[in-house]
Amino acid sequence: MSLSMYAITVPVFTRYLNNLDAILVKAEANAAERKIKPEVLVSSRLAPDMHPLSFQVQSTTDRIKFTLARLTGRTPPSWEDNETSLADLRARLKKALEFVATFSEADLAGSEAKMLTLKVRGEDTQVPAIEHVTLNAVPQIFFHITSAYAILRHNGVPIGKRDFTGG
Amino acid sequence: MSLSMYAITVPVFTRYLNNLDAILVKAEANAAERKIKPEVLVSSRLAPDMHPLSFQVQSTTDRIKFTLARLTGRTPPSWEDNETSLADLRARLKKALEFVATFSEADLAGSEAKMLTLKVRGEDTQVPAIEHVTLNAVPQIFFHITSAYAILRHNGVPIGKRDFTGG
Repeated sequence: MSLSMYAITVPVFTRYLNNLDAILVKAEANAAERKIKPEVLVSSRLAPDMHPLSFQVQSTTDRIKFTLARLTGRTPPSWEDNETSLADLRARLKKALEFVATFSEADLAGSEAKMLTLKVRGEDTQVPAIEHVTLNAVPQIFFHITSAYAILRHNGVPIGKRDFTGG
Repeated sequence: MSLSMYAITVPVFTRYLNNLDAILVKAEANAAERKIKPEVLVSSRLAPDMHPLSFQVQSTTDRIKFTLARLTGRTPPSWEDNETSLADLRARLKKALEFVATFSEADLAGSEAKMLTLKVRGEDTQVPAIEHVTLNAVPQIFFHITSAYAILRHNGVPIGKRDFTGG
């Protein structure tokens, strides 16, 4: 097994999008059991000035699509941020999983050597692709997935770390 | 820039341990300002049956040390889980940073091809090193760092995502 840009992106994103979907399935079941309205968990936050669950899922999927699009030069699909139920958020994860599944090892081959043009505080900045993915994109994706997990955990959804890792 | 086991571990761990330290510095200042006792934030949780801040920092540092030790065959240092203040947790991060700094590119070279023997539900299991690092170790490290961030954010410490990414 050799290390490639593919290895640190596509299988990781696929696994953790699926894990997050399984967490939302548990949230749906728990919300039904506790008779919580569909929109409540979706708009729950850990602090009043922090983003809600819907944003965490939107951000996870957006960062994943932008990462793969930037590495390959493809145009990312546009997804409206209009989810109001856990089912809507699961549909968003499904769209992201379908997009991720369109990338093969060959599509990502050579992207290790690329420089990406990214906006850093409004300025176009050249960043090595590896640096962007390892130090920024992947950490932020896990930041939003863990935030989604933490919001649900804080609201009493019965999930544990094994639901996060999926193993 | 080529992709190596070093690139996806040492610089990532160094950056995010430093970012977590800077977050704890802000927590210390905020606790002093609000006259919060040193032990309160350290033992704060997002749910009564979830681990406190101290555990999140201990787990972050332990997973980092075990990951690098496993990849290189080194014996990881042993750290007692006895932190009771934010200063103690910062000292723990410092020990982890010092340990990470002892690993060079050469130390990690070739570890991409290794198989690691890991306990999976009590059973010794052979796992490719790349798979372990990308799908398990790194995600869990970010899980614990984000959980530490979320506990402090939930408790009113004035931090934002830029403190998490450090940029």
